[in-house]
Amino acid sequence: MIVSDLPTPALIVERADLSANIALMAERLPGNRLRPHVKAHKCTALAHLQDAAGHHGFTCATPREVVGMAAAGLGADLLLANETLDPARLRAMADLEVPVTVAVDSPQTVAAAAEHGITRVVIDVNVGLPRCGVDAAGAGAIADLARARGLEVRGVMGYEGHAQPLPDRALRQQVTDEAMVLLAKAAQDVGGDLVSAGGTGNHDLNTVATEIQAGSYALMDSQYAGVVGFANALTVLATVVSTNAAGGYAVADLGLKSLGMDHGNPTTAAGAVWFCSDEHTTFAPAEPVAIGEKLRFVPAHVDPTIAYHDALWVVDGQDVLERWEVDLRGW
Amino acid sequence: MIVSDLPTPALIVERADLSANIALMAERLPGNRLRPHVKAHKCTALAHLQDAAGHHGFTCATPREVVGMAAAGLGADLLLANETLDPARLRAMADLEVPVTVAVDSPQTVAAAAEHGITRVVIDVNVGLPRCGVDAAGAGAIADLARARGLEVRGVMGYEGHAQPLPDRALRQQVTDEAMVLLAKAAQDVGGDLVSAGGTGNHDLNTVATEIQAGSYALMDSQYAGVVGFANALTVLATVVSTNAAGGYAVADLGLKSLGMDHGNPTTAAGAVWFCSDEHTTFAPAEPVAIGEKLRFVPAHVDPTIAYHDALWVVDGQDVLERWEVDLRGW
Repeated sequence: MIVSDLPTPALIVERADLSANIALMAERLPGNRLRPHVKAHKCTALAHLQDAAGHHGFTCATPREVVGMAAAGLGADLLLANETLDPARLRAMADLEVPVTVAVDSPQTVAAAAEHGITRVVIDVNVGLPRCGVDAAGAGAIADLARARGLEVRGVMGYEGHAQPLPDRALRQQVTDEAMVLLAKAAQDVGGDLVSAGGTGNHDLNTVATEIQAGSYALMDSQYAGVVGFANALTVLATVVSTNAAGGYAVADLGLKSLGMDHGNPTTAAGAVWFCSDEHTTFAPAEPVAIGEKLRFVPAHVDPTIAYHDALWVVDGQDVLERWEVDLRGW
Repeated sequence: MIVSDLPTPALIVERADLSANIALMAERLPGNRLRPHVKAHKCTALAHLQDAAGHHGFTCATPREVVGMAAAGLGADLLLANETLDPARLRAMADLEVPVTVAVDSPQTVAAAAEHGITRVVIDVNVGLPRCGVDAAGAGAIADLARARGLEVRGVMGYEGHAQPLPDRALRQQVTDEAMVLLAKAAQDVGGDLVSAGGTGNHDLNTVATEIQAGSYALMDSQYAGVVGFANALTVLATVVSTNAAGGYAVADLGLKSLGMDHGNPTTAAGAVWFCSDEHTTFAPAEPVAIGEKLRFVPAHVDPTIAYHDALWVVDGQDVLERWEVDLRGW
């Protein structure tokens, strides 16, 4: 099969770019220095490549991702880097035959984990991004609570998400350092071996964390333009379904239901994007395009784009190599 | 089951609001005056209610929606109000045992329809929204081409999407009228009985169309604030998973993978939303909220929100009545 045979809209992964990205990160952060985050791709076939590159621990954002990774034989050391209070989902993770570690940041999340069979936790610490995480000064107390409930406390995590997209490297370093002062303080109070943090944006700047939770590096994202070395490996293939030469525009069959839109419109080398509708993108072609022609668009944000799709099509230029199920969708 | 038992994030439909919306529209546009657009909900269980209210023809945006509606026994008169050149998808629609009508707007889409077994078309006319549709002056020629290929031409369609969200009713009327002058001209040149157009925003203003393709009215959308009579029936239920009293914020477990974001952040009566991440929404609670508390958020755009979810949970206040599969996702 060749790329132009694919039904559209379709997610296209350039195998050479993906392989180069995985190899480069494995060189920079070998083995357990990286705990790849599967939320970026939600695809166990892709995670198998990360495992083969030497990373056997994985980060997940949802219980569904944890359960799916275990089912795919990738459960050597799974971390749910997120809080949940859902009894059924906690129980589903606890019932796996592989070790699962869950983030907690409050007495309530500690109690929920303990009551529903979880045995290992990390203390999620607020390192400056206003989201989950106990303030650093309170981390030790949460760890004490967890131990009092019989939970093994493996250490701390903290996500300095506010550092990731900063285009200036020196500023990224500074914000990272400020965040890691907080995490190091919490780590001292909490104990344990794990200091889990970071992401693609500062994977080479965070020297405090024992492991980096990067995910976007595999397929890359336009928001990490300041990060050197990784290629954009993912595009959305679309078909031109209508043209209007007098109006100076054409219409392709990708839209709001095939693109994560929080970072704005997709881009394409074929021309300037005007706007997206549910199933269409209107753009001004730089050169005339033909009805039926297939074009590649770069989504503005990879993670929520993939979450709309069933599959990733792995290609080598015009040749379609494989279809990978996006098998970790949902919660 | 009660609402607080639902796993989150979850789409919640208030049955009374949905029923009132369907009843009101059936009163305003009875029977075949309305061709409900299923793209808004992608749910055959909901479409069955629209059918029971007297509307037996439906509008679809994707071949998948057409095939799924036929499989659900709702295939009395299905219109794909969109262009496709995909041979397999055209063939799948042509092979259905129910009548399917497909939009065409170019020699290429006419040829694709004819070659892959489609027998009925409408001519899609550009009425001012720069998207699909042949310019009105060229509609007759496309109809001639279609008839020369043996296709039955049922009439015209044109979507005045640029009129729908205008908050001022007089301006909505004016833009609708301008668009319908173009569609009426094309209808004269094309022939056939069908003049299909309109949407929720101007369902009571478009008097040229023989049928209105409204979809959003059933669950409603914040962008139609200027439209009188329909209640917002859809919310996203989320669980508070973390709070930070000193920081003045709390975090709920809905985010970029459970919300269509093209119209911006969701809103909630519980407080002011700060930002959304992949699986989180950070907000400033108006009153203190408790970890584990479940809150309802109004998504900024219903259609791409539903496309992320497996199910709609139909509720009556705190009682969960039914789970409806979102069974028309994909293409």
